[in-house]
Amino acid sequence: MKSEFDLIAALVERLPPPGRQVRLGSGDDAAVTEPSERASATSVDSVVDGVHFRLGEFGARAVGRKALASALSDLAAMGAEPGEAYVALGVPEGLGDEALVELADGLAEVAEREGVSVAGGDVTRAPALSLAVTCVGHEPVGSAFVTRSGASPGDVLAVTGSLGGAAAALRLLGEGARAGESGGEVRDRLLARQLDPHPRLEAGRALAGAGVSAMIDVSDGVGADAGHLADSSGVQVQIDAWLLPVAEGVRELAGSDEAATAMSVSGGEDYELLVAVPRERLDDARTAAGDYGLTEIGRVIEGEGTYVLAPDGRELEPGGFDHMRGSGSG
Amino acid sequence: MKSEFDLIAALVERLPPPGRQVRLGSGDDAAVTEPSERASATSVDSVVDGVHFRLGEFGARAVGRKALASALSDLAAMGAEPGEAYVALGVPEGLGDEALVELADGLAEVAEREGVSVAGGDVTRAPALSLAVTCVGHEPVGSAFVTRSGASPGDVLAVTGSLGGAAAALRLLGEGARAGESGGEVRDRLLARQLDPHPRLEAGRALAGAGVSAMIDVSDGVGADAGHLADSSGVQVQIDAWLLPVAEGVRELAGSDEAATAMSVSGGEDYELLVAVPRERLDDARTAAGDYGLTEIGRVIEGEGTYVLAPDGRELEPGGFDHMRGSGSG
Repeated sequence: MKSEFDLIAALVERLPPPGRQVRLGSGDDAAVTEPSERASATSVDSVVDGVHFRLGEFGARAVGRKALASALSDLAAMGAEPGEAYVALGVPEGLGDEALVELADGLAEVAEREGVSVAGGDVTRAPALSLAVTCVGHEPVGSAFVTRSGASPGDVLAVTGSLGGAAAALRLLGEGARAGESGGEVRDRLLARQLDPHPRLEAGRALAGAGVSAMIDVSDGVGADAGHLADSSGVQVQIDAWLLPVAEGVRELAGSDEAATAMSVSGGEDYELLVAVPRERLDDARTAAGDYGLTEIGRVIEGEGTYVLAPDGRELEPGGFDHMRGSGSG
Repeated sequence: MKSEFDLIAALVERLPPPGRQVRLGSGDDAAVTEPSERASATSVDSVVDGVHFRLGEFGARAVGRKALASALSDLAAMGAEPGEAYVALGVPEGLGDEALVELADGLAEVAEREGVSVAGGDVTRAPALSLAVTCVGHEPVGSAFVTRSGASPGDVLAVTGSLGGAAAALRLLGEGARAGESGGEVRDRLLARQLDPHPRLEAGRALAGAGVSAMIDVSDGVGADAGHLADSSGVQVQIDAWLLPVAEGVRELAGSDEAATAMSVSGGEDYELLVAVPRERLDDARTAAGDYGLTEIGRVIEGEGTYVLAPDGRELEPGGFDHMRGSGSG
């Protein structure tokens, strides 16, 4: 194991050079960024070995990717343009330098793809591998940040892309599946939902521009996240479970339509965007979502709480991932 | 244990209301801050139970104080005006809600005293209590940020306040001393160096205004931190060990002058400010340091590395705290 200072230097070397807005990057007491005429959005997201991933199943590179991608997903949900990321890395005794370099390569891969500067951070000893990532973004030009609290009765509830894939991937990884094996294209796409999640940054900015009234990323599960949106907006949200865009391969893995629906409702970590949008702006929002697509899954009405409805009118549990309990909670 | 979301709400309630520059605080995907005409400095600092503190010795409130204070110390070393803090909290199984509330109270105490808004954060399960704190500050009006890299041959090396107290406090805590016992004023002041460190924010801004050429906070130990300054500036730094301002009570605890010097050189976590300053500005810098005082401890010359000299001309080990090794190294 290198010393703290050699290690930081080795990790920084793997990262892409910071953007021009970073006047002073890693290596001083603080990073310095240029003034901005736009408001900033700042999000914090942590991942911990054994809670949000298992290092043995993911590999260090995928851990680096997931840590940065999940933090950026919060910025996507604001419609923000990403700027800088700051990484607090906790390293357990016995984790080799090679794994740390792979981790930095995973961070670098996402930083480069998403146009983010890793401008600073901190490395310390910790009992388990952990990354707390703080991301700073800027208000998009021509539109405002979108919060969770702007939904109004009458709005349509819609979600980008597909759901349940990340939960399915966790199961596959737990059963011993690994990326790059010849498990077929569908399985690889599922695994990528955990090993290489793509935050919906561009779609988020476009959705902000299209005039959605509220937005949140699907990290706890669409049922739980709809609940956060409902609570913040002071409205009731109803999801028609049969409308949920279940990811390809989830039905087969789950074994039944019902299990696939449950996985899609409460699985979490799909990092799609859930929006409330006035009906008359739905077409614009659909265009904004681009190739990911935007599926209408329910409605916003007066009242409170979240209701996930089955075709027979039964109410399903919204469930969701509670990061304090470390598992899905009913 | 409350759920993740109830817990966050309970913790946020303990914190002072965010300042006016925070447009949107905790509770959405990201916090939103107003545009700033000044450059920003962002620092990250983590503390982990068993590495940077022992919960049983510190108590949760002191952990909260130390986590925020140590992160702010990096901003002090830039001469920054503090703005917002973001806290990623890792909570071990079995830590009660009461301890978490105390922790939040400790954060709140420092946030209020130092004029910082805790604008966002994240709570997750973790194997040990840990806080990764990201602090954002602004360039001081009328002067620029001070980096580690501006020292020039001929500069005087000087340090605010006193050294060795934090290391002495760690020893006292390890021996069973607790705050508020009747151990006398000197002992309480020593304990406070760990349990209630005060970042030198105001002094840092004043020193920036007084034209110091380089600045760093003493977190790894003055020997090691002088080394960082020397490396960044491309100069050699010499410290005359007999000039070090050893904190009151350290000599008695250490048992000898030599041991007290060693504690002051390599102890770390004193959160004083180490500056390089042109001789003609030393008086201004002294005034800037205010009640803490500023002690001349050495010089900057051409060359590289750090030399800590004993009165007999011997060279002492600069040592210092390596957060990857979890103990003094060297």
